[in-house]
Amino acid sequence: MELSVTPLLDTVDSPDDLKKLRRDQLPALAQELRGEIVQLAAPGGLHLASSLGATDLIVALHYVLNSPRDRILFDVGHQAYAHKLLTGRRKQMPTIKKEGGLSGFTKVSESPHDAITVGHASTSLANALGMATARDALGQDYKVAAVIGDGALTGGMALAALNTIGDTQRRMLIVLNHNEMSISENVGAMSKFMRTLQVQKWFQEGEGASKKALGAVSRPLMDFMSRAKSSTRHFFDPASINPFAAMGVRYVGPVDGHNISELVYLMERLVELDGPTILHVVTRKGKGLAYAEEDPIKWHGPSRFDPATGKSLGSSVALVAGEPVRQSWSAAFGDAMTELSRLDPRAYVITPAMREGSGLVGYSKAHPNRYLDVGIAEDVAVTAAAGMALQGLKPVVAIYSTFLQRAYDQVLHDVAIEDLDVIFAIDRGGVVGADGATHNGVFDLSFMRSIPGVKIGLPRTALELRGMLKEAMRIGGPVAIRYPRGDTVQAAPNTWPDLKWGTWERLQAGQDVAVLAGGKALEYAEAALEGLPGVGLINARFVKPLDLEMLREVATHARAIVTVEDNTVVGGFGSAVLEQLSAWGLSTPVRLLGIPDEFQEHASVERVHARSGIDAQAIRTVLAELGVDVPLGVY
Amino acid sequence: MELSVTPLLDTVDSPDDLKKLRRDQLPALAQELRGEIVQLAAPGGLHLASSLGATDLIVALHYVLNSPRDRILFDVGHQAYAHKLLTGRRKQMPTIKKEGGLSGFTKVSESPHDAITVGHASTSLANALGMATARDALGQDYKVAAVIGDGALTGGMALAALNTIGDTQRRMLIVLNHNEMSISENVGAMSKFMRTLQVQKWFQEGEGASKKALGAVSRPLMDFMSRAKSSTRHFFDPASINPFAAMGVRYVGPVDGHNISELVYLMERLVELDGPTILHVVTRKGKGLAYAEEDPIKWHGPSRFDPATGKSLGSSVALVAGEPVRQSWSAAFGDAMTELSRLDPRAYVITPAMREGSGLVGYSKAHPNRYLDVGIAEDVAVTAAAGMALQGLKPVVAIYSTFLQRAYDQVLHDVAIEDLDVIFAIDRGGVVGADGATHNGVFDLSFMRSIPGVKIGLPRTALELRGMLKEAMRIGGPVAIRYPRGDTVQAAPNTWPDLKWGTWERLQAGQDVAVLAGGKALEYAEAALEGLPGVGLINARFVKPLDLEMLREVATHARAIVTVEDNTVVGGFGSAVLEQLSAWGLSTPVRLLGIPDEFQEHASVERVHARSGIDAQAIRTVLAELGVDVPLGVY
Repeated sequence: MELSVTPLLDTVDSPDDLKKLRRDQLPALAQELRGEIVQLAAPGGLHLASSLGATDLIVALHYVLNSPRDRILFDVGHQAYAHKLLTGRRKQMPTIKKEGGLSGFTKVSESPHDAITVGHASTSLANALGMATARDALGQDYKVAAVIGDGALTGGMALAALNTIGDTQRRMLIVLNHNEMSISENVGAMSKFMRTLQVQKWFQEGEGASKKALGAVSRPLMDFMSRAKSSTRHFFDPASINPFAAMGVRYVGPVDGHNISELVYLMERLVELDGPTILHVVTRKGKGLAYAEEDPIKWHGPSRFDPATGKSLGSSVALVAGEPVRQSWSAAFGDAMTELSRLDPRAYVITPAMREGSGLVGYSKAHPNRYLDVGIAEDVAVTAAAGMALQGLKPVVAIYSTFLQRAYDQVLHDVAIEDLDVIFAIDRGGVVGADGATHNGVFDLSFMRSIPGVKIGLPRTALELRGMLKEAMRIGGPVAIRYPRGDTVQAAPNTWPDLKWGTWERLQAGQDVAVLAGGKALEYAEAALEGLPGVGLINARFVKPLDLEMLREVATHARAIVTVEDNTVVGGFGSAVLEQLSAWGLSTPVRLLGIPDEFQEHASVERVHARSGIDAQAIRTVLAELGVDVPLGVY
Repeated sequence: MELSVTPLLDTVDSPDDLKKLRRDQLPALAQELRGEIVQLAAPGGLHLASSLGATDLIVALHYVLNSPRDRILFDVGHQAYAHKLLTGRRKQMPTIKKEGGLSGFTKVSESPHDAITVGHASTSLANALGMATARDALGQDYKVAAVIGDGALTGGMALAALNTIGDTQRRMLIVLNHNEMSISENVGAMSKFMRTLQVQKWFQEGEGASKKALGAVSRPLMDFMSRAKSSTRHFFDPASINPFAAMGVRYVGPVDGHNISELVYLMERLVELDGPTILHVVTRKGKGLAYAEEDPIKWHGPSRFDPATGKSLGSSVALVAGEPVRQSWSAAFGDAMTELSRLDPRAYVITPAMREGSGLVGYSKAHPNRYLDVGIAEDVAVTAAAGMALQGLKPVVAIYSTFLQRAYDQVLHDVAIEDLDVIFAIDRGGVVGADGATHNGVFDLSFMRSIPGVKIGLPRTALELRGMLKEAMRIGGPVAIRYPRGDTVQAAPNTWPDLKWGTWERLQAGQDVAVLAGGKALEYAEAALEGLPGVGLINARFVKPLDLEMLREVATHARAIVTVEDNTVVGGFGSAVLEQLSAWGLSTPVRLLGIPDEFQEHASVERVHARSGIDAQAIRTVLAELGVDVPLGVY
């Protein structure tokens, strides 16, 4: 692959420029785009494999449609680097996911070409439905096209949107980008079904065979279409059973998603048809990069690597004698669950399509019969857990904080009302950094706290996480254990400390102001209090219930309380403290430090925390304002 | 219909008793059950039509299965009166939906025969998936059967659960209760598709023809099944296109859902098959009650009526000269929107299958081209609104508070991040009474407040609702307007008062304690303050943002503040006040009155409010505790 010579791409700064190219130049342009994307991804942290796979279809879409007038929606939006490169953002691409730079997803406020702001899966079809409805209601005539992966299509919201799209029959093109891979391998019956739609033979034999196969099949089809237009609904259906057609959506496919000339040929015609059409294209994640095609899960979002060889250049962690070994919080959870499921036959783990991200690869191998991946369907994950709990299991839903937002009602209605024994292992709680506003897990303390009976803990270390898991299994009912993105000190295997739910830990006595913090925020508080022996520090590791005994003592004796949390200040931990003091009729002043009530743009976790005023520096500033004698020049 | 003679039902107090009957007695038993249900529903307030329609299939299920060992799940759970009557609760049935009485839905803590606690739609399949998974993981062998309506099956969560059910192939029976009617008429492509599956002819010709048709079709099928068992997946598929089969779920049907002997025959065999099976039964809502069959929407949940004639006995509202005319809040909203859409071509209304409940029948007729029903898919409703807003409309999502819980992430991720112009008309905000814990809308102030940029208003009257709608259209961004179940004073047509968002209204000056309340809670506060001229009273009609100017003035001058809200005390309006005072460093004592942090069982709205301590009496008690001179004996 040629990585740096980009004669065609150099001429393209907009979709208009793209249209000046000849059709036979488009494959070469796509190659240049892929080369550029690999170079951009080499420093690490980008969504590589999916972006490579979608490049050809993005070129075709922009060649056929007229963005920004026509709307092109990308589900999840992490596969749209080629779209960014083609819409005037090439120079800014090296800033992607960095503070002040481009978003890693599509973002309305970033470019008029970005039709939706997105980051969560399965939303594109409902958005497209809304857009096509608005267009028709306002008597306009632009085109709407949504690109959705087969993984995102297993999300209930996408299926339900399809239900109304089939019903209302508004004109739109849905490009089903079928690569059999979301972040984990796709699961589910829809996925199996879609696989049966693939005409494996011609696809595997490469472009020549593909062109021949499509030539034989699609030209007469197109002739037919131009005569029949919308008078017929199902005209190219290789399987006798097709749920899309059954739902009233015209189905075309599958076609080779890397054959740009075929894609252009089809799209030009399909966008002119009345009603909704699904164009089913088959692509390879990692397309054009041999090592990424071979292991697309690994190359979903690789760390720093050598583009020529695919060799990882990640910083090897040098183990220093005497220093504790660190691991990701996700891995710490996975390790703990693998052990726990050996100890307790009722333990069961559910993931909504996040096996790798949630640290569950080892678990799924160790306990294949006590592991369920429900696809991108957080609501199903939570309610299936409810069903399990009703029948005697102790399920653990492993879920990112930002995705748990999609199952708020299921936690409340299906789990909490009957006080069922479901544990929520909430990963990526708090600011997540580079993925930005769509992914920050800074609302969970607020929305989970509002649900009666849900217990919430914030472990400080992997060891405390184990203590909380053990305690959660013991006490039952809905229990949320929330930990951040990032790493922690690895716990020794088979250690299960005792930890009574709802008990805080006094880390520093102090007689003046008291700082209450749990989880990630506690790390900042500890750093802030170095050299300040008079300030009290409490590991407020339980947000619900609070440790009433210790809180009362603190509120009675401290001159003021400072709460610090990696969560919105609206309705979170600090508010819990205020509510309790109000109930007691105590008027101890409380200062709430947390994430401000606005969406946080992407930047490093540390930067967002600093901006938000919850890092060590900010805590010291507040302590100084409260009259604590903070020595200058420490920072 | 014989309404009171129940010789068979008198012998049945449990599923075991039921099994002592001969099969040919079951239709007569079902008739008795229906008569009993009609009698129970005559005083009003029950779910009549759906319960009549599901009676035959419930009799069949309990005849075939062994509850409670076998698990029978009812989606939504409002159609299960026959199930309650057959499982030892006949004597308590007159207490249904009353304080201390039976729930209107199935409820785990009410009976071992109630497999799930439910009230929201589309959850049964994920629960059944979890139960079947638990059974297999624990090496047990009971049976799992879920009854789901065609309306609930349009919910994305049900479709997504089906995806995993088809994938994991655990043994279960799904009874698709197809009556073409949820509360409104069903919409969507799935619904159209399911209609094509009906063998209309034999079904419409009645039982004789039905038996003949089924006799011809199903007996050979059964012979085939008994030979083939699970070796084949699709063996009875009248349509060439079947999405259930495509998703890997064995499909059988459609069959007459009122032919009990056929249902028993089929169910006995289907529950023995490996893997998941859908039995598609066609029923009539209102079955056996001619007037209810004719208009099942009207008879979904009728008010008091004469069982013999179907004549409504609802209390006619006597208009007293000089007294204001009252109407439901839903109707007030519907009227306002009908007018507003005439004034502003960008207005558009979306409902998730709640046309009648949300007061939109008139609107949908007046503005059919600016009205979209997306089926039971709250997430799609919100994100479709986002798409509309992105393309120039000003969509209004009309939604019950309890169902908005199902779209928390869509409000946050799809609407709020880009500050899109979407109005949420939140109906049934606060305690709803008889429907109980699953339906109380007492969390919305907390979960909506935690989302940055969402503005929240609580109108006091229909007139104020109009002012808020007008203001919401003007200021843009996400705006939630929340009103309770119940009625309000009707506003004159074409009145659109000016109302600046974020401004409270001082109703009574007062120099001592100040009471802050909005919406329904304000009614209680007004009553409580009669004869207490020294106490301040503020119509705190905006929860976000607060009226900072007025709050600061109150907090500076009042001796204490009492906040009253028809919402959980966790993270709601009172917490917003506490957070603001904390930010200002003010220590004015604040007493938070609201719904306690526990689920509220069903009772009248007034009773739940009294129990919760937010009614006038409770407010006066608190004022007295705070030292206000409250005259005794007023209550």
